[in-house]
Amino acid sequence: MSINSFGHLFRVTTWGESHGPALGATVDGCPPGVPVDAAMIQHWLDRRKPGQNKYTTQRREADEVRILSGVFEGQTTGTPVQLMIENTDQRSKDYGDIMDKFRPGHADITYWQKYGIRDYRGGGRSSARETASRVAAGGLAREAIRALAPDVQINGYMTRMGAHEIDRSRFDWDQIEQNPFWAPDAQAASDWAEYLDDLRKSGSSVGAVIEVVARGVPAGLGAPVYGKLDTDLAAAMMSINAVKGVEIGEGMSAAMLTGELNADEIFMGNDGKPSYSSNHAGGILGGISTGQDIVVRFAVKPTSSILKTRKTITKAGAETEIITKGRHDPCVGIRAVPVGEAMMACVILDHMLLHRGQVGGQIGENRGQIG
Amino acid sequence: MSINSFGHLFRVTTWGESHGPALGATVDGCPPGVPVDAAMIQHWLDRRKPGQNKYTTQRREADEVRILSGVFEGQTTGTPVQLMIENTDQRSKDYGDIMDKFRPGHADITYWQKYGIRDYRGGGRSSARETASRVAAGGLAREAIRALAPDVQINGYMTRMGAHEIDRSRFDWDQIEQNPFWAPDAQAASDWAEYLDDLRKSGSSVGAVIEVVARGVPAGLGAPVYGKLDTDLAAAMMSINAVKGVEIGEGMSAAMLTGELNADEIFMGNDGKPSYSSNHAGGILGGISTGQDIVVRFAVKPTSSILKTRKTITKAGAETEIITKGRHDPCVGIRAVPVGEAMMACVILDHMLLHRGQVGGQIGENRGQIG
Amino acid sequence: MSINSFGHLFRVTTWGESHGPALGATVDGCPPGVPVDAAMIQHWLDRRKPGQNKYTTQRREADEVRILSGVFEGQTTGTPVQLMIENTDQRSKDYGDIMDKFRPGHADITYWQKYGIRDYRGGGRSSARETASRVAAGGLAREAIRALAPDVQINGYMTRMGAHEIDRSRFDWDQIEQNPFWAPDAQAASDWAEYLDDLRKSGSSVGAVIEVVARGVPAGLGAPVYGKLDTDLAAAMMSINAVKGVEIGEGMSAAMLTGELNADEIFMGNDGKPSYSSNHAGGILGGISTGQDIVVRFAVKPTSSILKTRKTITKAGAETEIITKGRHDPCVGIRAVPVGEAMMACVILDHMLLHRGQVGGQIGENRGQIG
Amino acid sequence: MSINSFGHLFRVTTWGESHGPALGATVDGCPPGVPVDAAMIQHWLDRRKPGQNKYTTQRREADEVRILSGVFEGQTTGTPVQLMIENTDQRSKDYGDIMDKFRPGHADITYWQKYGIRDYRGGGRSSARETASRVAAGGLAREAIRALAPDVQINGYMTRMGAHEIDRSRFDWDQIEQNPFWAPDAQAASDWAEYLDDLRKSGSSVGAVIEVVARGVPAGLGAPVYGKLDTDLAAAMMSINAVKGVEIGEGMSAAMLTGELNADEIFMGNDGKPSYSSNHAGGILGGISTGQDIVVRFAVKPTSSILKTRKTITKAGAETEIITKGRHDPCVGIRAVPVGEAMMACVILDHMLLHRGQVGGQIGENRGQIG
Repeated sequence: MSINSFGHLFRVTTWGESHGPALGATVDGCPPGVPVDAAMIQHWLDRRKPGQNKYTTQRREADEVRILSGVFEGQTTGTPVQLMIENTDQRSKDYGDIMDKFRPGHADITYWQKYGIRDYRGGGRSSARETASRVAAGGLAREAIRALAPDVQINGYMTRMGAHEIDRSRFDWDQIEQNPFWAPDAQAASDWAEYLDDLRKSGSSVGAVIEVVARGVPAGLGAPVYGKLDTDLAAAMMSINAVKGVEIGEGMSAAMLTGELNADEIFMGNDGKPSYSSNHAGGILGGISTGQDIVVRFAVKPTSSILKTRKTITKAGAETEIITKGRHDPCVGIRAVPVGEAMMACVILDHMLLHRGQVGGQIGENRGQIG
Repeated sequence: MSINSFGHLFRVTTWGESHGPALGATVDGCPPGVPVDAAMIQHWLDRRKPGQNKYTTQRREADEVRILSGVFEGQTTGTPVQLMIENTDQRSKDYGDIMDKFRPGHADITYWQKYGIRDYRGGGRSSARETASRVAAGGLAREAIRALAPDVQINGYMTRMGAHEIDRSRFDWDQIEQNPFWAPDAQAASDWAEYLDDLRKSGSSVGAVIEVVARGVPAGLGAPVYGKLDTDLAAAMMSINAVKGVEIGEGMSAAMLTGELNADEIFMGNDGKPSYSSNHAGGILGGISTGQDIVVRFAVKPTSSILKTRKTITKAGAETEIITKGRHDPCVGIRAVPVGEAMMACVILDHMLLHRGQVGGQIGENRGQIG
Repeated sequence: MSINSFGHLFRVTTWGESHGPALGATVDGCPPGVPVDAAMIQHWLDRRKPGQNKYTTQRREADEVRILSGVFEGQTTGTPVQLMIENTDQRSKDYGDIMDKFRPGHADITYWQKYGIRDYRGGGRSSARETASRVAAGGLAREAIRALAPDVQINGYMTRMGAHEIDRSRFDWDQIEQNPFWAPDAQAASDWAEYLDDLRKSGSSVGAVIEVVARGVPAGLGAPVYGKLDTDLAAAMMSINAVKGVEIGEGMSAAMLTGELNADEIFMGNDGKPSYSSNHAGGILGGISTGQDIVVRFAVKPTSSILKTRKTITKAGAETEIITKGRHDPCVGIRAVPVGEAMMACVILDHMLLHRGQVGGQIGENRGQIG
Repeated sequence: MSINSFGHLFRVTTWGESHGPALGATVDGCPPGVPVDAAMIQHWLDRRKPGQNKYTTQRREADEVRILSGVFEGQTTGTPVQLMIENTDQRSKDYGDIMDKFRPGHADITYWQKYGIRDYRGGGRSSARETASRVAAGGLAREAIRALAPDVQINGYMTRMGAHEIDRSRFDWDQIEQNPFWAPDAQAASDWAEYLDDLRKSGSSVGAVIEVVARGVPAGLGAPVYGKLDTDLAAAMMSINAVKGVEIGEGMSAAMLTGELNADEIFMGNDGKPSYSSNHAGGILGGISTGQDIVVRFAVKPTSSILKTRKTITKAGAETEIITKGRHDPCVGIRAVPVGEAMMACVILDHMLLHRGQVGGQIGENRGQIG
């Protein structure tokens, strides 16, 4: 019931504050025999690293991960894996303003009310920096998935920035790594660049929608009725800083459909497995994977730290104004893409382990045969 | 790690199938000394009961709840409360069709693939009937909340049916109980009645959006970073049958806002507590309640059981067609309203208990003072 | 984190009070496809049933178990199994004495202090009657083990009653079912009969030591370092009413040995598997099963309800005396034998599922080969 | 369900191997506002540190603890506390022998069988070095207890070394810190010194019994029926390396008593609280604390690493012999004393938090009044 942990059998506990000595992830339940080293985890962390372009925070952290336990001679041993990232860019600066004033849209006020003490430096525990720990854990999850179910592919991308959505007819997997926004649509990326540049200069920020897709996930994963695959994905995504909505498949728009439009018809595929006419379900029926793509979408609110004057109060209860200077992302959603992927990887791996625990068999093997 | 349980300290395990002898909720962790009897739970169950009007399933169940344990002389004792509802309307009928064919949009195929065995009668465990157990548990949670924090009020209502949304300018709390759709807008209710009647006659179905609001919840509830109040609410709502999306406050639309529009400004209220200019946050910042209304919204997909011929396959892998006769809701979202309220009540109570465990003090009392 | 639950993947929640309408076990995580019906569970319950001879309580309960969910057409479906036992012999009687006075050695006083309310009738939740729920769940666990690992055998027996121990040189598995004490030593059984008869007539009671052995358990089960097989067994046994000590293998006597006497030497057996010179370890090294017999022992204190006058206090804080009339076991340890077996079965099954979840492979298959 | 974690609300996850870069404890759920710094944790670690006298291992580790998170300006913040200890004395040496041969009485063989890979250096994860993490976490728990319930005192001591027990009539709390064995009996300490010196020279080892007592614990702690205080203590102690038996109060000897001897009679004390004639119960009735001393005892088996030739097998399945050279404790029980204390502290604190979560009120306050 650890509140800083998630997962059933692949269990990740993140720890650390934005400006403390270090942060990291304690991962319990990684299967033994998974080939992994620090460089493999580092690969995923580098994708999230700040300061890579003008659209993300200029905080410059090496974000170098060390594996302190659970790996021996290049393989996991089945014991806890400790992934530590030292904080190296904790600029000495005057925190007076945010020490006493609560930034609107931030967790400053609620942490204070709840705990009566908070590490205000950089947002402390509530900083988006916590997501570095998630990405490290997700990197480990990906390596375990690679070992257990090599066909699984997990990819995230941005589908909306503010009012501007991608055009699905231009969707191109290969574009995603070609632009700083993880956009699967070159035109959208180009439009967003211009839009965001203006926004950044004006000191404002904007929200985004991220979509994460897992392909090649076998049918049968998910633990009804409170450990459903979609339930765990919803929790995983909603737990990311600044996320305000989560959708599976058709998502909120499912409300607008009629039954005959929404329910995906079933056929037999050429591979002898069930095949579907469409994927409104987002690859999940009754909380269990169908074998189709798992499709999750989430909305990230705009960064609340902006160069605009906003009304707020002090700890002493005085009304005042605040303007948040410093290094901030105009669209924090950009860096949420690798975080969403990491959460997807953790949830998928966790359900693979849970499935073989409760139902048995190899990953991808099903008790119930069709045909 | 029970997969049919949810909650940290107020822990609910639901059990039972649609057409088995009974179903219910085993509730562990209800505080002692809460006044409760079967009639008080029954009150909430009756709101969800099928067959109350022509818009909900004609299955007629008494849905009578019995308290088998944990209550003594009209009060909870702190031991597990067993809430049992016997199934009385299990019509003997020919299940041949759904025994062999998988209904599109249903959990039939995935339960089969996962478990290799399923109680196909009425959907078995994946039936919406499972939500009766949730409503019973939620009724108990409400009584505990009433005892611990009498100012808290929890209300759900429907904001959208298919393409038709309520008009927020006509929002009226008093309307909610006046129409069969729990609509806070009399005009919308009237429009929906006509619309749904046509849809029902045509054998189709439609989705809906439900909003649940908790008023009077004290600031400070929520356990960052993986037991956040919004994380647990997202999981709770997504675990309800047919739900495909969950939003907190501004929800998916937060992606469309700029930072200055989204971040709620803070003032001092007349009651000496912080007050906010708006509630885009839905009452939650950094996973912790602010003291504002907690606002959650979720989309329910249209019932997949419709009187329209749909393509599917059989267990033997043959392509075929199916038409689902029987008693079905044209808009299952209607009955999701009391279910959403029940989940809200369980999560709020759970976090009240968790908060006093981890931080101490009475419910509503805060460690961190302002002013 | 349900406090009335135990187990990781095979998760049992017991509920119910001694004199409430019913009690039972909600079992979540039973693997699908296990052949089971009520009669198979009843078989194990009948072994624990009171009133079978003059040495156990004369309360006469049918203790008839009903399966309310999770089983379809004679097999488990992977959904929660609800096992309910109705209380039929709740004699209407005057509880005045135990309502106000706390019986020494009982949970009366601590339940009162903790909860401020208690169902005093027959001890309420703290009654040994709760163990009927455990035996029912254990019966289900046994059937699952039979399906997954048919070589496993679980047997309990009494090794000590008061000052009188069995003679290990007379140990005979076949004797266990031949006497009312589950003694593996016919002579001890005969001696105990005489001894206990005298004790019973005098209105006194006596403690006992129970040993439970699991044979045929494959090597590799156990989840270091806080889900060790011995850790979980210690918790399982200590959670049984009246248990005050738990030992694995050599137990407390391990303190008296030197290293060379204690450490079991290792050989290769004729079956190509490791074999040991002795079993001081009780079949567990580093929290993981070795393939040898799993040996657990626990001490049950004497029944505190005796026909002897004892000093105590009332709820009002007055000093007084109490004599507990009614139907009580002179040696409650006798009926603890099937309970200990049930707990062993639950723990072994749970670790089989956990092992295949975390490490993979079939039950009994090992990742690390020898030879 | 993390298997390297324990505790309900005060949740400790230990990580790290004997010869890896570091080990530590991730502590989630420590209440906010507890004054603590590294030196306060170090104090407790120093008590366990090896190499302090000739009776404990000559491995010389600084065992210096660093607090990496969760503490700000000298107080806990309610976020996870990461306690890290770097391994500094990982002598480069030839591990050839224990890489291929399994040491009798050690976890070498079972870790290999379970995981198919193991860090054999110094026992890896199964090394007693893991207990340093527990002592660090226990140190934090002690500071939290000091803040919440300053009257609580937790002390451990050795009551038996091999055949030699202390004489209870000579019991003296002040002696405990005066000798290297934590013996509360000066004469026993002197006898043990001579005895152990001989044993050490002969290359042998011996077991021990440790008793841990918590004084000043309020009545009412414990969560029946599977989170009982004694259940959690039994699990906590049995999870310590080399422990083979756990007793509460009278322990295994309870089996030898009659009901009238065993049940502690109840009086009213001068402080207006219930008082007991004796403490056979070890301060726990029905799994809930009575307000008396909590008394737990556990047996530690003799170190299996001895300078005596023992028969064993290799990974290849060949029969062979082994003699374990190196730095080993002749009585590992000595260093188990601070470990037992640490586990007691963690369990007591955890139940204080759990109690106020589920039942409410301040620590030590009871819902049920007497008198």
